[in-house]
Amino acid sequence: MVKLYTYFRSSAAYRVRIALNLKNVDYDPVFVHLRRGEQSAPGYLGLNPQGLVPTLVDGDRVLVQSLAIIEYLDETRPDPPLLPHDPAGRARVRGLALAVACDIHPLNNLRVLACLRGPLGIERARRDDWYRHWVAAGFGALERMLADAPETGRFCQGDAPGLADICLVPQVYNARRLKVDLAPHPTIRRIDAACRDLPAFAAAAPENQPDAEA
Amino acid sequence: MVKLYTYFRSSAAYRVRIALNLKNVDYDPVFVHLRRGEQSAPGYLGLNPQGLVPTLVDGDRVLVQSLAIIEYLDETRPDPPLLPHDPAGRARVRGLALAVACDIHPLNNLRVLACLRGPLGIERARRDDWYRHWVAAGFGALERMLADAPETGRFCQGDAPGLADICLVPQVYNARRLKVDLAPHPTIRRIDAACRDLPAFAAAAPENQPDAEA
Repeated sequence: MVKLYTYFRSSAAYRVRIALNLKNVDYDPVFVHLRRGEQSAPGYLGLNPQGLVPTLVDGDRVLVQSLAIIEYLDETRPDPPLLPHDPAGRARVRGLALAVACDIHPLNNLRVLACLRGPLGIERARRDDWYRHWVAAGFGALERMLADAPETGRFCQGDAPGLADICLVPQVYNARRLKVDLAPHPTIRRIDAACRDLPAFAAAAPENQPDAEA
Repeated sequence: MVKLYTYFRSSAAYRVRIALNLKNVDYDPVFVHLRRGEQSAPGYLGLNPQGLVPTLVDGDRVLVQSLAIIEYLDETRPDPPLLPHDPAGRARVRGLALAVACDIHPLNNLRVLACLRGPLGIERARRDDWYRHWVAAGFGALERMLADAPETGRFCQGDAPGLADICLVPQVYNARRLKVDLAPHPTIRRIDAACRDLPAFAAAAPENQPDAEA
């Protein structure tokens, strides 16, 4: 049985939960409470030296980094595919996924906001501005990448959900929490809604996790 | 002929330069001067809506995001491979690459440091502390991931350079520029030195680019 170390509100764990659901992989969740610092316990650091979630354990394999985990799931459980078969399509989908995973999410996760608050002494309102600035900049570019491309369909690439959608939906969830204005991003809103209609995405949502808190 | 939009000091462009050299792909460099804001010119935004480097043009294909570009190069020019053939090995290499690309580099690139300086008004010394904090945290975890693993060889995975090394070397270059103490990271230093001994890495280094500045 696959084991997933997860936290309900972690975007990166949310991505892997969606991928596992799309692949119909049963898994045992292990809850790592980020706000209580459980990711820094020595036992967990032995599995994941970065002290981040998610970690996936598949038999004797321990896997880290959400995008590496999802590519691994796609290689070991190819049906349904999360990437197109042609190299140019794969590059487009990975490019969209990385535009979220490298250029939006890292600036907005819990440890970075904590560093802005603590060591840098930035107050709440300006931390929220920081958050919204990077989401707005990132979504502005993503909207153009999606709206202008013939490859975009019901989902980011054609009419089946894949790796780019898996990264997009948790970032939109975060944006909504921080009250980012999504009006300028109609294609993102449309694709997000189409994804959230699917049971695999709905079951992975933070509010539907056993460790969810108000 | 492949065309690469690049800036000598961009870590992400540096990664793609290394990959092109390892694959023996001839390319035409097009220089995008990030400090002069050329990445925000309308013509460039038409190619790369994020306004980031690198962009790779291969025939009629326009590719963005360094890791997506490198995976594309590996799929279209498989020799020499930049990823292992087994899914677990591929996941490990991608995990190491993403630990740099998602968890260190995004916090330290030019646009983020500019945002800390301008809108947030953080002075130079504390911006440098921020930089060093994320590199030290990231390298501490990477050092353990490399030093403790039997898969690590002369390079991050075995005895041939690949995607993880391609991400590591530009990050070490940045760390040196900002005078991050690398003494606690002997495995990283050893692998970085082994990489820089190879002509493909040396030719890709910032100081060896036609657009290099003092």
